[in-house]
Amino acid sequence: MSLSALLFGKPLRTSDERAEQIGPAAGIPIFGLDALSSAGYGPEAALTILIVLGAAGIQYIVPITIAIIALLAVVFVSYLQTIEAYPGGGGSYTVARENLGESAGLLAAGALMIDYVLTAAVGISAGVGALVSAAPSLQPHATGICLGILAIIAYVNLRGVKDAGVFFMVPTYLFVGTLGTALLWGLAKSLAAGGHPLPVAPPPPPGPALQAASAWLIVQAFASGCTAMTGVEAVSNGVKAFREPCARNAKRTLAIIIAILVFLLAGIAWLAHAYGIAAADPNAPGYESVLSMLVGAIAGKGVFYYVAMLSILLVLSLSANTAFADFPRLCHSIAADGYLPSSFALRGRRLVYSQGLLALTAMAGTLLWAFGGVTDRLIPLYAVGAFLAFTLSQFGMVFHWRRKCGPAAWRGILLNGAGALVTAITVVVVLAAKFLEGAWIIALLIPALFFAMKAIRRHYDRVTREIAAPGPLDLARLAPPLTIVPIIGWNAASKKALRFACTLSPDVEAVHVETEDDDGALRRDWAANVEAPAKAAGARAPRLILVASPYRYVILPVVDHVLAAARTCEGRLVAVVIPEIVEDRWFNRFLHSQNAALLKAFLYFQGGGRVAVVNVPWYLNDDRSSTTA
Amino acid sequence: MSLSALLFGKPLRTSDERAEQIGPAAGIPIFGLDALSSAGYGPEAALTILIVLGAAGIQYIVPITIAIIALLAVVFVSYLQTIEAYPGGGGSYTVARENLGESAGLLAAGALMIDYVLTAAVGISAGVGALVSAAPSLQPHATGICLGILAIIAYVNLRGVKDAGVFFMVPTYLFVGTLGTALLWGLAKSLAAGGHPLPVAPPPPPGPALQAASAWLIVQAFASGCTAMTGVEAVSNGVKAFREPCARNAKRTLAIIIAILVFLLAGIAWLAHAYGIAAADPNAPGYESVLSMLVGAIAGKGVFYYVAMLSILLVLSLSANTAFADFPRLCHSIAADGYLPSSFALRGRRLVYSQGLLALTAMAGTLLWAFGGVTDRLIPLYAVGAFLAFTLSQFGMVFHWRRKCGPAAWRGILLNGAGALVTAITVVVVLAAKFLEGAWIIALLIPALFFAMKAIRRHYDRVTREIAAPGPLDLARLAPPLTIVPIIGWNAASKKALRFACTLSPDVEAVHVETEDDDGALRRDWAANVEAPAKAAGARAPRLILVASPYRYVILPVVDHVLAAARTCEGRLVAVVIPEIVEDRWFNRFLHSQNAALLKAFLYFQGGGRVAVVNVPWYLNDDRSSTTA
Repeated sequence: MSLSALLFGKPLRTSDERAEQIGPAAGIPIFGLDALSSAGYGPEAALTILIVLGAAGIQYIVPITIAIIALLAVVFVSYLQTIEAYPGGGGSYTVARENLGESAGLLAAGALMIDYVLTAAVGISAGVGALVSAAPSLQPHATGICLGILAIIAYVNLRGVKDAGVFFMVPTYLFVGTLGTALLWGLAKSLAAGGHPLPVAPPPPPGPALQAASAWLIVQAFASGCTAMTGVEAVSNGVKAFREPCARNAKRTLAIIIAILVFLLAGIAWLAHAYGIAAADPNAPGYESVLSMLVGAIAGKGVFYYVAMLSILLVLSLSANTAFADFPRLCHSIAADGYLPSSFALRGRRLVYSQGLLALTAMAGTLLWAFGGVTDRLIPLYAVGAFLAFTLSQFGMVFHWRRKCGPAAWRGILLNGAGALVTAITVVVVLAAKFLEGAWIIALLIPALFFAMKAIRRHYDRVTREIAAPGPLDLARLAPPLTIVPIIGWNAASKKALRFACTLSPDVEAVHVETEDDDGALRRDWAANVEAPAKAAGARAPRLILVASPYRYVILPVVDHVLAAARTCEGRLVAVVIPEIVEDRWFNRFLHSQNAALLKAFLYFQGGGRVAVVNVPWYLNDDRSSTTA
Repeated sequence: MSLSALLFGKPLRTSDERAEQIGPAAGIPIFGLDALSSAGYGPEAALTILIVLGAAGIQYIVPITIAIIALLAVVFVSYLQTIEAYPGGGGSYTVARENLGESAGLLAAGALMIDYVLTAAVGISAGVGALVSAAPSLQPHATGICLGILAIIAYVNLRGVKDAGVFFMVPTYLFVGTLGTALLWGLAKSLAAGGHPLPVAPPPPPGPALQAASAWLIVQAFASGCTAMTGVEAVSNGVKAFREPCARNAKRTLAIIIAILVFLLAGIAWLAHAYGIAAADPNAPGYESVLSMLVGAIAGKGVFYYVAMLSILLVLSLSANTAFADFPRLCHSIAADGYLPSSFALRGRRLVYSQGLLALTAMAGTLLWAFGGVTDRLIPLYAVGAFLAFTLSQFGMVFHWRRKCGPAAWRGILLNGAGALVTAITVVVVLAAKFLEGAWIIALLIPALFFAMKAIRRHYDRVTREIAAPGPLDLARLAPPLTIVPIIGWNAASKKALRFACTLSPDVEAVHVETEDDDGALRRDWAANVEAPAKAAGARAPRLILVASPYRYVILPVVDHVLAAARTCEGRLVAVVIPEIVEDRWFNRFLHSQNAALLKAFLYFQGGGRVAVVNVPWYLNDDRSSTTA
């Protein structure tokens, strides 16, 4: 077993695709981590806005969460429709592009790409932030820990979908299990106590009210809470990853994810209200998260508390995985349509789109590194991208249904129309509420990506136009090329190249640049070394052309000679046959001039279409070289 | 005028060499800066050792300096002999190698190379150290200033010898002028005052005596003071840089440098004694250098004082230039003999050995950066290398004269023998006195360089043996190669490559790797696109070979096919003709797969001696492509 097979797994045959497909059990960790982990920060984000209302603010969390859950339900149902309609993978990009046209598709694509990069970076740094606040001695290593987790997630995903599913299963179910248990336990206590349970570990009292409740504040809290919905589109993008019947498995997976998420959100909101838990200022000393206070109030700060906190922390930092599952698929779809470099469309050794995966790792890593692992300020940004993609996808579905008929179509239009409307309003609300906090960056980045992708497609179209349909091969008037061999002296490498040149064409020139310390041996011995044997063999002898070099250049005179020859040599190509000595050990390469490589580069860039470069390698210490031709 | 001509000067023709040659006026700044600037730290280094003797130590500086000057005289006379005997450039390396054999030459070469790198780094950091102690606010930028000065010196030298001479003339003569004036002034005052002049700005009193004088302490002080002699060999290395008569101009230059240096050393020693100036502990607060105290005592701390200090500082930091003048010449000589990569032997556009210059810059820059611009600890090291080279050179001269006869030869043997003896003793003394302070590093580095250079020569010898004298060209049984064209689809680039392949050989194969989304168009249209026109032209049609790729690899199947063909194709080479689409703009290159480049690399490394690679470029947006063949 080779080292690469050990590290990255054996290469998978294209025909092994089915074995890599997954069911709901693995689908939930892979596509659901992002959505589920949002329960860890969504309610907290809404409650943080409500801090200024003091104890009076807590009551609003229940209606706000109900609104969020209603929105989630609309989005859920319409994504079910999308999966049904696009069993080949119906991400927002595909749906918007097919139904609303290229521009809408690219808008959705740009929004989603940004969303995924942010998801990856923010997910990891949120988890590490929680870890660091629990163990402050790790503070100086925060960036390193972030990048380490990023590397692990990237590595697991490079090993293929199946391996990733197994890897992420344990933390996901641990999280759902412990947080779910805590919430059920709390609900039971709350019901037993008539809605006013006594906390085991009492949360700190809410701060004083600093202002009165206003509609705008409630809207802002709602917008912040909507971050709980990011990641819901993940399943619809990855339908192809599921085993047959794909669409049914994907829908089942999505339904389970949403059900768990709704339960977590509802439970948290209800219990936060019941226990009177307000958010704490994250910048104040002794800060504690809402979930920490809540689990403490329900279960006390014993072993269970620590297991629950650890699982939240794990899932937060692994939530980045959803981006890793979807971003490469998204890039594949975009690249297949010609809007991204074509290498994004290729599947690597483990059948994942390795290039997109590496691009995501690089971008998220850069963000984490640039922000020193503290990406709090990015959190407000990424709901915009997600909701813009939602909206375009919903509108796309409305147009999709319009082309069908029957009651199913009408139900579709109704559902997706409602979804489109609600999510569009949410985009506007989130954008307005978060514009100055940084959402303007997104408002600039999305158009930038949009135009970049259009330019890439235009470029590919031009290339295709230029090289396409050249007509049949024309083999009339085939003339052998003029062959030019740059030659430093008479040695085994140049002899081999010259003989090879003679097999290509009867028209061979050897070009020699005369340098300051030239001993003239090449010119002196040319008759004996080349002309005499050519005469004996009845072949045309290669001509020796000497070129002066007053400025000691050794490459430019050859290039000039070749270009001059190419200009006069109508209807034929010029083949420059370069003898090259290849070292057996890499470190010995530094001991030789890089003239062959430089000459190749010069001819490549300046040669135009009329010069072909031929490398004839001569291997040191290799018997094969000498036995050949 | 192009940008590069503006920055680095117009390229100089090899025949313009004479115009770049210099006389003594430019020779003193170029080859003398190191020697002259040693007056700035040599006496101080000796006095620093004497600190422990308190006021009683000062008296020893005069006899120590007399010993140093005597040694200097011996070295001077024997270098005059060397220049006379080796008018083509008689560095220690050349002299030792020609007279004592390869090993002695390489020992001298290694010692000198280390010496020059240290000279460059220490010179700059000493100057910047003085600057920073005068203006402490610059402290945080010390490394940056060091690297900036290094870059300036490297740049000026890249512009050629003549330009460098002009650039370094002003600071050199300013230094000699002001320090010389100060010393003459002091001597006059001292004579007028009967040997006990009154200081204008009194130096701080010497510290208390901590121990009694011992022979070993005096020897150590002498060894430290010998750093004043580094740089003396510079002229002998660069004889070729002088205009005709080279040897006479070089000797005159050396004589002037030594005369000035002797005057400076003697004056400093005498006046330090007369004014009772002891060195201060460089690590103590309020540290002041010996020269600063001396000039202050003579002239007071007015404008003259500051001009003198500035010129000392300038010359110290520019003393690195001597290394830049000599190191590339030294590397050239070594490379010409095959002990260093051959590129060190080539002269760049301005007739300087650019590669050696850049190597020196890189190594000195690394030292400066690694030590944060504080290279005090390196100072003790570099006298060892210099004196080892002196000794080998002197011994070499003794053997040189032994082969001559007549009185001149006897005088030579006597003088160089004396020089050899004295400098050999000095090596031992310096090595013993400085061994634990770091000279052991030099004792390790010199042998390391020695063996590395031997290995390089051995490698070149092997290569030469392998490729040399291959006998005359053999043009019997010329058979056209088997030509293989990797082809992705039927487009203009592959059509051009295929037609070119047909001009090279009648035996052409097109290899196509079938990937997952292959539409089969290539196979379907092969008869129409290729076979029919070939039949019409009466030519043999290229065969289409389809290769499966279950793991989606696109390069390896082609490589495997080529290698298999090469194995079965006795007595012929295989020419792989690679169609390559060349973008008109560099940034567009990222939009295309690098498969052509990767395939080339694979074939280059694995192809052995039987595969030649042919690039047929197809230029986008370029009419030349389409008009050709």
